[in-house]
Amino acid sequence: MDKNSFALRPPMGWNSYDYYDTNVTEADVLKNAKFMAKHLKPYGWEYIVVDIQWYAYNTASMRDKFQYIPFGKNEMDGYGRLLPCPEKFPSSISGQGFKPLADQIHAMGLKFGIHIMRGIPRLAAHHHLPILGSNVTADMVADPSSVCEWNPDMYGIRKGEAGQAYYNSILELYASWGVDFIKVDDICATGFNPHRGYGRKHEVEMLHKAIENCGRPIVLSLSPGPATVEESWHYTRYANMWRITDDFWDNWETLLYMFDRCEKWQDHVRPGCWPDCDMLPLGRVGKHFGHERHTHFTKDEQKTMMSLWCMFRSPLMLGAEMTLLDDWTLSLLQNRELLHLETGNFVSRQVLRDKKQRVWVAVDAETGEHYVALFNLTDAALEISVTLDECKAQFSGVTFGEGNYMEIWSGESMEGNVIHGTVAPHGALLFHNQ
Amino acid sequence: MDKNSFALRPPMGWNSYDYYDTNVTEADVLKNAKFMAKHLKPYGWEYIVVDIQWYAYNTASMRDKFQYIPFGKNEMDGYGRLLPCPEKFPSSISGQGFKPLADQIHAMGLKFGIHIMRGIPRLAAHHHLPILGSNVTADMVADPSSVCEWNPDMYGIRKGEAGQAYYNSILELYASWGVDFIKVDDICATGFNPHRGYGRKHEVEMLHKAIENCGRPIVLSLSPGPATVEESWHYTRYANMWRITDDFWDNWETLLYMFDRCEKWQDHVRPGCWPDCDMLPLGRVGKHFGHERHTHFTKDEQKTMMSLWCMFRSPLMLGAEMTLLDDWTLSLLQNRELLHLETGNFVSRQVLRDKKQRVWVAVDAETGEHYVALFNLTDAALEISVTLDECKAQFSGVTFGEGNYMEIWSGESMEGNVIHGTVAPHGALLFHNQ
Amino acid sequence: MDKNSFALRPPMGWNSYDYYDTNVTEADVLKNAKFMAKHLKPYGWEYIVVDIQWYAYNTASMRDKFQYIPFGKNEMDGYGRLLPCPEKFPSSISGQGFKPLADQIHAMGLKFGIHIMRGIPRLAAHHHLPILGSNVTADMVADPSSVCEWNPDMYGIRKGEAGQAYYNSILELYASWGVDFIKVDDICATGFNPHRGYGRKHEVEMLHKAIENCGRPIVLSLSPGPATVEESWHYTRYANMWRITDDFWDNWETLLYMFDRCEKWQDHVRPGCWPDCDMLPLGRVGKHFGHERHTHFTKDEQKTMMSLWCMFRSPLMLGAEMTLLDDWTLSLLQNRELLHLETGNFVSRQVLRDKKQRVWVAVDAETGEHYVALFNLTDAALEISVTLDECKAQFSGVTFGEGNYMEIWSGESMEGNVIHGTVAPHGALLFHNQ
Amino acid sequence: MDKNSFALRPPMGWNSYDYYDTNVTEADVLKNAKFMAKHLKPYGWEYIVVDIQWYAYNTASMRDKFQYIPFGKNEMDGYGRLLPCPEKFPSSISGQGFKPLADQIHAMGLKFGIHIMRGIPRLAAHHHLPILGSNVTADMVADPSSVCEWNPDMYGIRKGEAGQAYYNSILELYASWGVDFIKVDDICATGFNPHRGYGRKHEVEMLHKAIENCGRPIVLSLSPGPATVEESWHYTRYANMWRITDDFWDNWETLLYMFDRCEKWQDHVRPGCWPDCDMLPLGRVGKHFGHERHTHFTKDEQKTMMSLWCMFRSPLMLGAEMTLLDDWTLSLLQNRELLHLETGNFVSRQVLRDKKQRVWVAVDAETGEHYVALFNLTDAALEISVTLDECKAQFSGVTFGEGNYMEIWSGESMEGNVIHGTVAPHGALLFHNQ
Repeated sequence: MDKNSFALRPPMGWNSYDYYDTNVTEADVLKNAKFMAKHLKPYGWEYIVVDIQWYAYNTASMRDKFQYIPFGKNEMDGYGRLLPCPEKFPSSISGQGFKPLADQIHAMGLKFGIHIMRGIPRLAAHHHLPILGSNVTADMVADPSSVCEWNPDMYGIRKGEAGQAYYNSILELYASWGVDFIKVDDICATGFNPHRGYGRKHEVEMLHKAIENCGRPIVLSLSPGPATVEESWHYTRYANMWRITDDFWDNWETLLYMFDRCEKWQDHVRPGCWPDCDMLPLGRVGKHFGHERHTHFTKDEQKTMMSLWCMFRSPLMLGAEMTLLDDWTLSLLQNRELLHLETGNFVSRQVLRDKKQRVWVAVDAETGEHYVALFNLTDAALEISVTLDECKAQFSGVTFGEGNYMEIWSGESMEGNVIHGTVAPHGALLFHNQ
Repeated sequence: MDKNSFALRPPMGWNSYDYYDTNVTEADVLKNAKFMAKHLKPYGWEYIVVDIQWYAYNTASMRDKFQYIPFGKNEMDGYGRLLPCPEKFPSSISGQGFKPLADQIHAMGLKFGIHIMRGIPRLAAHHHLPILGSNVTADMVADPSSVCEWNPDMYGIRKGEAGQAYYNSILELYASWGVDFIKVDDICATGFNPHRGYGRKHEVEMLHKAIENCGRPIVLSLSPGPATVEESWHYTRYANMWRITDDFWDNWETLLYMFDRCEKWQDHVRPGCWPDCDMLPLGRVGKHFGHERHTHFTKDEQKTMMSLWCMFRSPLMLGAEMTLLDDWTLSLLQNRELLHLETGNFVSRQVLRDKKQRVWVAVDAETGEHYVALFNLTDAALEISVTLDECKAQFSGVTFGEGNYMEIWSGESMEGNVIHGTVAPHGALLFHNQ
Repeated sequence: MDKNSFALRPPMGWNSYDYYDTNVTEADVLKNAKFMAKHLKPYGWEYIVVDIQWYAYNTASMRDKFQYIPFGKNEMDGYGRLLPCPEKFPSSISGQGFKPLADQIHAMGLKFGIHIMRGIPRLAAHHHLPILGSNVTADMVADPSSVCEWNPDMYGIRKGEAGQAYYNSILELYASWGVDFIKVDDICATGFNPHRGYGRKHEVEMLHKAIENCGRPIVLSLSPGPATVEESWHYTRYANMWRITDDFWDNWETLLYMFDRCEKWQDHVRPGCWPDCDMLPLGRVGKHFGHERHTHFTKDEQKTMMSLWCMFRSPLMLGAEMTLLDDWTLSLLQNRELLHLETGNFVSRQVLRDKKQRVWVAVDAETGEHYVALFNLTDAALEISVTLDECKAQFSGVTFGEGNYMEIWSGESMEGNVIHGTVAPHGALLFHNQ
Repeated sequence: MDKNSFALRPPMGWNSYDYYDTNVTEADVLKNAKFMAKHLKPYGWEYIVVDIQWYAYNTASMRDKFQYIPFGKNEMDGYGRLLPCPEKFPSSISGQGFKPLADQIHAMGLKFGIHIMRGIPRLAAHHHLPILGSNVTADMVADPSSVCEWNPDMYGIRKGEAGQAYYNSILELYASWGVDFIKVDDICATGFNPHRGYGRKHEVEMLHKAIENCGRPIVLSLSPGPATVEESWHYTRYANMWRITDDFWDNWETLLYMFDRCEKWQDHVRPGCWPDCDMLPLGRVGKHFGHERHTHFTKDEQKTMMSLWCMFRSPLMLGAEMTLLDDWTLSLLQNRELLHLETGNFVSRQVLRDKKQRVWVAVDAETGEHYVALFNLTDAALEISVTLDECKAQFSGVTFGEGNYMEIWSGESMEGNVIHGTVAPHGALLFHNQ
C-alpha cells in the first residue's frame, strides 16, 4: 500500500468538533451526513468525522469546570481498546462499535472518520490489561510520563513490538468497522513540549505501520499544530495531513497568522501530503462550548479564508452544523470556481509579501491554467497589483496559460498582464485565467 | 512559626540515594545512623534521610529496564497517603508508619528525614479515594497533566482548599511519625518543563502551609534543580533549601558546572534559605544502581568539592555508605577547620573569575574572620593569587580581620596581603585567617 | 570609595528624553533645572540628566527616517572622546565641555547627570585615534562586532588595559566637568542579544573601575532593560541602578508588565543597588518624537504607577517638561506621604498575587512603620483585602508597628487588622500606618 | 534567466580557505587550478574559488590576535566596491580586477569563483561614498546595526532601490571579470542572531536580482550555516546552494552532526537547489591557520564523509592544497563509482536511523539504478542490514532496478534482497546495484 494514494487531493469533509465539542451523538452525525450527501457531495465534500471522546460517558456534565472530565468513565474492551459510548451511539451496542454508523454513511456515498487520542487508555495500564496479539500487558507498553497536556485519557506508547501490537489491534478494529480516516490528536506539534518530540515521532511511525498492516487505506491526519517544518520529511513519509497551527477559530489574528505558516509550508504540499490549516469555523459554531454563534468572521474574511485554504490546497473540514447553514455560507461551499483549486492539479507559491499584503499564485504545470489571489491584511481598502512576470518567476520551468482573467467573487473579467484591484479590508480578490 | 528558624545553618546529614537507589531498608538506615551518631555527630552532622520509593514493593526487581517500575505496587492508606513498604521497613507494620524508626534515630540524638514526590498517588485519583479532612475525592484534586517526567507514582495537585487538605493530611501524618525534614522531589526546577512552572510554585506554597499547619518545624528541601534565579524570591519565602543543579555525581564536568551556578546564586544564601549543591558522592556509592564503586573524584577534586560547598554554604548531604568509609574520606568529614564555614556565620562572594580559576571569599561580618579559597579549574598546576583588597572590595561595609593565614589542607601558614599559591590540577587551596 | 554610598536612597530627578528625544538644548535644561530647584527640590528631587546624543549635530533633521542619523557628524576630541555639540550647548565652546552648565546646576543645589552610549566612537576606531594614557590606538580597543542594535555611534570596548584607559579618560573628563550621574546605554539587558552578554558585563566592570579611578562619586545607571535576575549579583556589585524592563511609556500594558518584573526583583533592592522601573511619563511628553501629548495614563493609572515605583523603591526620573506641569501632576510629585517611601528606610515585599490584584507591603524594620498598597489590575472596580498577619508573614523577624491606617490618596483613615477597600479600575489604594 | 539552470548538478570544485585562510595569492590559485585541470577535471571537478579577504592588505600580519584585522586596509574603488589586493593578486593592477586571473582559469576549462561578505564596506558608509547607478550615498544604504559577528569589513544593506543599485554595481563588475560563482558569507544562518533574520533574507533577494540583472549565470552560494529548514522555500527560490551547518572541520563530532542535518534537509535537494555540507577537509589543510596537518579523519571517516556527501548530493568543495595530495586521497577524488552519485540524477532518502547506525538510499527514478549506504556511527565494528523493501518504502511510486550489488570501496559483490555487511567503526559501506 502506498499512503500517498489514499489522499490524492486534499480531503474535504465535516468535523463535529466546532459545534458539538465532546458531545456529538449518532443522530447529530446522521443529520449532517444526510445534508452533505444531498447538498455538498457534488462539490467534492465527502468525509464525515466524529471528533473527540466518542467513548466517554457524561461528557456534558462538568462543562463549567472541565472540557474533559479527569479520571471519568470510558467505554473500553478487555484489551484496552476504546469503544463508542452506547449512550451517545446506540447502534454500537453488543460490541458492534461504529460499524452500523459507518455502514449508513457509506450507503450515502460518503466516507467515515473518527478522532482518537495518541496512546493507550490510562486505566488499561493501571489495570495491567492484556494486549491483543501480544503476551505483554499494558503497563509495560504505556509510558507513564507521556501524557497529553490537556486531555486525561491516555498514556503514550513506548517504541517496540508490543506497542506496535496495540496500535495494530486498534487499527484492525477500525478497519473492521469501515473507518476511512483517523484524526490522531496530541501527536503533531513538538514545539509545545520539545523534549517529548521524538516520542511522538515513533508513534506516528507505528500508526503508519498499523494502517499498512490492517490493509484498509485509512487516511492519517495529525493534530494539533504547529507542525515544525524541520520535520517535514517525517510527516511527508508517514502521514497524509498535519496541522500547521494550533487550533483555528473565528478571529482575525489566527487567520492572519495562517499566512505566515502557509509561507513556511508552501513547498511541502503534494498528493498524499497535505499541510492542514484546520477546520473552517463557518456558519453556526460553538454550541456545546456554551457560546453558540454565527461565525465572527465577516464575509470578506470568509472569502479570504476560503481563498487562502484553497490556494494553499489545505484540506477543508467544515466546522458548522450543516443543517443550519444560511444561503450565503452554503454558496461558499458550492463555489465550483473556488473548489476547482482543490480538485485540480495545482502547485502554489507565495509571490509577494509585506506587512500589508500577500499575493499567491497557483498553477497547473501541465496546462498552464492558473489562479492569482490578492490578499489585503490591513483594516482599510488597498490597491494591490502584481505582474504576470513576477508570478512566473516563482515557477522555474512552468509555462503559464495566456488569456484574460475572471475575478471569481465578483465575476468580473480583467485583461492584461498586470493583475490588480482594490481589495476590501481583510478581503481577497481571486483571479482565474480563462 | 518562622520557617527561617528551622535551618539556621546549612543542614548536614546523610541520604540513602547515592548508594541504595530505591532499595534502602530499615536495617541499612539504622546501620548508618549508628555510624553517624558515633563518628560524625560531634562535627555537626545530624540528619538521616530515607530517599525515594520507601512505599514501593519489588523496587529491585526490574532494574535493567526501569529505575521506577511503571504502575507498580505501592503501600497506601484509604485516604491516598503512602506508607512505608513493610517488606523494607518491618517496624512500620500495623499502621505505625515511620514512627518506630524515627524514634530510634531521635534516641541517638539525630534527626529523621524522608523523601516524597510532589502530588497525590495516581491510583488514588483513578479510584476516586476520599481526602482526609475534605468532602472532595482525589480525582477532583489531582491534575491529570501534571506528571513527573521520570517517576510514575503521582499526579500534581490543583490549587485550592481540597488540595491543601491533602497536603495537610500527609504532613500531619509525618509530624505524628516525628519527621524533621522532607525532601520533596519533582518540584524545584521549572526550566525543564517551563509551561508547568507555576503549577509547581503553588505546590511549594501548599507544602509550606501544611508544615505551618502541622505545628512541627519540618525542614522543607526542594528537588531537583536547576532552580531558576528569577524565582529566588519564591524559594526564599517558602522553602529552606533548593537544588541549584540537576543531579550531581562524581564526574568533573558536573563539579565544574557548579562553579557557574554558585556564581549566580551567591547573593541568595542566608539563614533558613540555603541554595543546595546536592549530595556528596564520596566514599562508596552506586551499589543499587548496579555500579558500586569508590567515588571517581580524585582527592584534589574532593577537596575542591568540599571547599566549594562549604565556602558557598551549601547544605551537606553525604551519599556514601558510611560504614564503608575509608580513613581519608572520614577525615574530610571530620575537618573542623573546613566545617567551621558551615557552622559559623559567614557570608561569601566570588572575587575572581575566568576560564582557568575562581577565587571565593567568606567573611564573618561581625568579627572579620574570613576564608579565601583558590580554585584551579584546569588540568595543570596553576599559580593563583588575589590581594586582600580585591577580596574586601566585594564586601561593602565589612571590616576584615588582620593577621596571617593558614592553608587548611596543608596546615602551612602564610603572611602578607597577597593570598597565593600553586594549586594542583582540579584542586583547591583554602586559607583561614588566624 | 564604596559605590553603595553614592546612592543611599533611590535617585530622584528629571531626564530630558521623554520630551526632547535627541534634541535637548542648554536653554531647555536650565529652564527645567530652575523649575526643579524652586518647586521640587524640597521634596527630594535633585538630578538633572541630559539624555542621548548631546554630542551630535543636526539631530532633528531626519526624524521622519531615523531617530539617530547613521554615520552623522559628532563633536569629538583628538582622543576619541565625545564633547557637547556647541550648536546645542553654547557654553561648551573652547573645550569647556559641560563644566559651565554643571556649575550653574550645582549653584541651584542640584546634581548634574549625562547619558552616554557604551563604547568608543566608531570613527575613532576607523581613524586609529590615540587613546589618552595609553600607547594603543582605538582600532585595537574597539570590538567591530560589538555594536548597538539601535544607535550607530559607538563600538563596544575589548577587555584589557587599553580599554580601561579609554574609560578612565572619559570618566576623568566627566569628573572635571562636575558630572554626578551617568546613565550608560546599550549595556544592561543581555537577553536581547544573549551571545554578547559577557561583553557587556566586562564593560560594566570597566566603568565601575573608571569611576573609582576618577575619584568622584558618580552614580552609575545602566540601561536599557530588562536586566536578567540571574545576573543580579553582578549589577549589585558594580552599578547603582539598572533597568528591569525595556523602555517604559504611557500605556497600560507596560505598566501591567512592571508588576511581574517588580515581583522578580523584590529581594534585590537595597542602598546603593536600585532596580529601576524607568522614567515617569507624566505631564507633557513626546514633543520631539513628533507626538507631543499629555500622558495617556488616567489619574488612577498615575496613582498606581507612583504607588508601585515608591513601594518598590525604584529610582524616580521625571520625563515631563516640568515648566508645563499642571497642578494635579505637580501635586503627585510633591506628595510627602508618598515620597516618604523613597526617602525613608523601607524594605518591601509582594504579599498577594493573582491575575486580578497585587498587594505589596513596605516596612521600616527598625521602627515597624509600614505601608500597604492594594492594586487593581482589572478594568472594573474591585474589592481587595489583606490581613496584617499575611503581611507580617512575608517579613521573617520584623515587628510591625500598631495603630490605624490612613489611605494616602483619599486621606481617609481605617481601623483594624484587615486592610481593605474598593479599588478603582487600574487604580491603587495606599495605606500608611499612623 | 532561470537560476535553477545554473547548477543542474551539485557544484564540485576547490576552495582556498581550508589551507590558505585569508592569505591565498594568485600563484597559489593558479598552481591549484593547473592541478585540477590535469588530474580532477575529467571526474567532474571544475570550480576554483578564491575565499575570504582577497581585497585586504597585511592579512597574515596579526594572526596571533585576529583572523581579520579590525579596521584594516582594503583595496576599494570610488564607488565603495572592493578590488583584489594587488600585493596578493598582481595581475589585478590598473583596475583589471580578477579578469586576468579568471581568463587564465577559463583557458584551462575551469570555472572561477570568489567569496564576498554580505553588504557594503564600512568605510564607504563612514565616508559617504557615491553608489554607482544611484544618486544616493553609502551612508543612506548601509545599516549601521547590521554587522557580521566575526568579520569587521562590511555593513549590511537596507532594502530599497539604492541598496539594489549597490548590489547591481558589484555583480556587474564581477560579470565583467568573468566570475562564475559567488560564495556570499554572513548571510545564510539566521538562528545565530534571530532578530536579524529578515534583514539577511532581503539581501539574498537583492543578490539574486543583481545576478539576473548582470546577465551572467553566476552560481549563488550562501554561507555560513546552519540554514533553517523553515526557510527552505526562500533558499530554494533565490540561491543555488546554502550551508546546512556551521563550519565543518576534520573532527568526528561535526561529521556525526551532519547526519542529523542531512536527515532534516533530505527532501529539499534538487537541481539548482543544493543544501551544502561544506568543504571537504581532506589531504593537507590548515597551513595559514598556523596548524598545517594531514586531515585528522581516519580513512574510514573519509569514506563515510564522501559517501554521505555524495548520497545526499551535497556540493563538493575540496579544502586541500591539491598539489600536496597523496595517492590515496587523490583516489577518493577520482572514484567514478562514487562520483556518479553527483553527476547522475539521483534522489535520496534516509531509510533507517538510530543512535548506532544510519542507512541512506539514492535512486534514479527513471532507470531504477540505486545505491544503498550503511553508516556505522559507533566506535566498534557493527553488523548493519536493510531490506530492499524497506528502501523502496521510502520512495512512493518509484520502481527499483533488480540485480546484484557491488560494494564500491571493496569491489565485492553481493546477491539477494538484504543489503548487509560488517561496517568498520565510523565507517561506511556503499552498495551500487549492477
